Amino acid sequence: MSRRTARDLRSESRMAVLRAFFTLRTATRQELSQHTGLSVATVSTLVKEFLSAGVVQIEAMVSTGVGRPLELLRLDPGRGYLVGVDVAETYVETTVFDLSLEPLGTVSVPLDEHLNSPQYVVDGIRLAVHGVLALASIEASSVVGVGVSLPGQVQPDLGVSVFAPNWDWHDVRIKDLLTDDLGMHVHVDNPLKAITVAELWFGAGREHRDLAIVNLGTGVGSGFALNGELVRGVSNNAGEWGHTLLVFEGRLCRCGRRGCVEAYVGVGGLMATLAEIQPAHPALRITQQKPFVDAVQSGLVSGDGAMVELVDRTARYLAASLGDLVNMINPEHVVLTGWTVARLGDWLIPLVREKIQPAALASSLAVLTISASALSSSTVALGMSTLTLEHFLAAVGLPSSAGTTGSGTVAG
Amino acid sequence: MSRRTARDLRSESRMAVLRAFFTLRTATRQELSQHTGLSVATVSTLVKEFLSAGVVQIEAMVSTGVGRPLELLRLDPGRGYLVGVDVAETYVETTVFDLSLEPLGTVSVPLDEHLNSPQYVVDGIRLAVHGVLALASIEASSVVGVGVSLPGQVQPDLGVSVFAPNWDWHDVRIKDLLTDDLGMHVHVDNPLKAITVAELWFGAGREHRDLAIVNLGTGVGSGFALNGELVRGVSNNAGEWGHTLLVFEGRLCRCGRRGCVEAYVGVGGLMATLAEIQPAHPALRITQQKPFVDAVQSGLVSGDGAMVELVDRTARYLAASLGDLVNMINPEHVVLTGWTVARLGDWLIPLVREKIQPAALASSLAVLTISASALSSSTVALGMSTLTLEHFLAAVGLPSSAGTTGSGTVAG
Repeated sequence: MSRRTARDLRSESRMAVLRAFFTLRTATRQELSQHTGLSVATVSTLVKEFLSAGVVQIEAMVSTGVGRPLELLRLDPGRGYLVGVDVAETYVETTVFDLSLEPLGTVSVPLDEHLNSPQYVVDGIRLAVHGVLALASIEASSVVGVGVSLPGQVQPDLGVSVFAPNWDWHDVRIKDLLTDDLGMHVHVDNPLKAITVAELWFGAGREHRDLAIVNLGTGVGSGFALNGELVRGVSNNAGEWGHTLLVFEGRLCRCGRRGCVEAYVGVGGLMATLAEIQPAHPALRITQQKPFVDAVQSGLVSGDGAMVELVDRTARYLAASLGDLVNMINPEHVVLTGWTVARLGDWLIPLVREKIQPAALASSLAVLTISASALSSSTVALGMSTLTLEHFLAAVGLPSSAGTTGSGTVAG
Repeated sequence: MSRRTARDLRSESRMAVLRAFFTLRTATRQELSQHTGLSVATVSTLVKEFLSAGVVQIEAMVSTGVGRPLELLRLDPGRGYLVGVDVAETYVETTVFDLSLEPLGTVSVPLDEHLNSPQYVVDGIRLAVHGVLALASIEASSVVGVGVSLPGQVQPDLGVSVFAPNWDWHDVRIKDLLTDDLGMHVHVDNPLKAITVAELWFGAGREHRDLAIVNLGTGVGSGFALNGELVRGVSNNAGEWGHTLLVFEGRLCRCGRRGCVEAYVGVGGLMATLAEIQPAHPALRITQQKPFVDAVQSGLVSGDGAMVELVDRTARYLAASLGDLVNMINPEHVVLTGWTVARLGDWLIPLVREKIQPAALASSLAVLTISASALSSSTVALGMSTLTLEHFLAAVGLPSSAGTTGSGTVAG
């Protein structure tokens, strides 16, 4: 219940040191102590575990002018590799990272959105994982873990895809399937959790501890961090802002409910809004979503009145629904991300900053900033690799992992 | 940024021991250690501070049959008193508690809702505080602190009422005004934060670490706790669910926005809905809110068709907006509280449990329970006294409070 065990505290301290390496890249024990607020003694104990597991290496000795030189430490990029996998309805994209989370290569494999068996998706993931390892000339045996983001609701602890609406998956034990198929350690989660973790440690989270991520694409969703910690909720479903109400009994959403935010600001929602503005608009003949959004962008560049109106209405919907998120969560910063934002953000974001004013509490808006993500692509893969590394390191130095620290894999 | 200091950790541990006393009432150091997950050595250090500040006392010695007898400890009810103050537009209600948070008496003073000067409100608070102390025969000098809940947006650290819409207060330095007027240590906060803290340590929080509180009255609002910690947001405004959208561009809300949840499930919303159902209904001649809700309750008891329809529509609105809260926060439990719930909960809650099914994710609903609050009245006062006690104890044993631990008050 309300108790936090010594093991929890030790794990939190270990994560704090890991995250300090993400931010600082190289650091002495003293710098790690200053950054984390942990004592030098605690940092030294944790660093000793990391050194003996080969996760951290001594980069150099630095002289401070006083006393003996200090060891400058870093995550050991050669200790092993992480593969981050972003699975969507129409593609699998994999990026391989070294242990300091530097990307080494990316491969994308298309998926036929009309095929939905778990084995078909597993086949696509296997192709993409082996493809990216071949591209970067990395042996499968040196992969520490594979982090796989799956659409829909995911239970990371159980390794289960609870519900993936577009595939009609219910309670698929995807982690077991992938572990058997790949012969590697696999960790699964939801893309919004992955994106939030990526922003938290490599993006806006470096400046803001209370953070909401809003992702706009085919689906829309959010993730949030409070006090620098990812919020999961009790069954890993927190942040389903895309399925909160914008219009009571409004447009039918893919989720089956009426009036959800996603039905207005997801790409299907943009198409529906354009059909209301100008039913015969030529862009409505485009059935694929990314080309449609490309057409919206082109229309904005060329000053197409219907597209200008579309962006204005979409900004109104988005501002109203972001106002709800701000009133509920009271974050310090909102990051807009996803491929709709990559294409339309330059038009949308200034309008949203203006239109959110009447839609949220003045004293919450007074402390709020909104920006597009500054991270480059593969954010989902970066976040999944980060989560997988955290999962791996949580076991380092604990009795149950004693036999695995030399092998490059760890039991899930 | 991402660092947590040794002082933070010490303060968290101190709060964990305090909360263990709330739950266990009496405990040995060993039991406190088991309950909190802290080591016996850490617990012993904190207990020593509490003992020397007179906050904890030895209740008895208990023999375990092995080794020497153990000291059974408890919060010392005679160490001092706390006054919890619930300020609403139409009344001030004060309850005095001993240091173990047992209530000793309650007094209510009416406020004229047409008068709104800070001095008028301060006068009302002074009358109610001195009244309840007289009732319980407690000297003002033995009051450890007064916790005052104020409607609207409150900044506890600054002691400022940022915005109280019904009084048109902006940035009123209410804590300074009250401290000068009462000559006591004053701590201020928002009622939803107070109710959430009360539920967290004395109500549903004993069973659930991920908790949302939904309060229904004139206004509606929520508070939530994740992992057993109150969520405040970056400017103490998290939980403003009452001002999230139910109907895009719908009914005008008191906050100035259109379509907020409060405009449908607050008492003004109930009146508006009844006027849509049966414009000439005699209950609409009642202008005061509590008598109106009493009339709704009577109508339900006697089977008035318009009132049955009113509760059905209200349950539909409430279920839809609770669905949004569940999708955003993914709590384990929702507690419904407030005076509308006290009167209409028996009809509303079963309907809400049914109507929320299509309004939220199945995998979030699968782990969710909904209940009416099991706490008796004065929940706001209990929560404010708890927050004030935490604030007082955070300073116990710290250098800055060394001179005050014997005096019963502590510098804010």
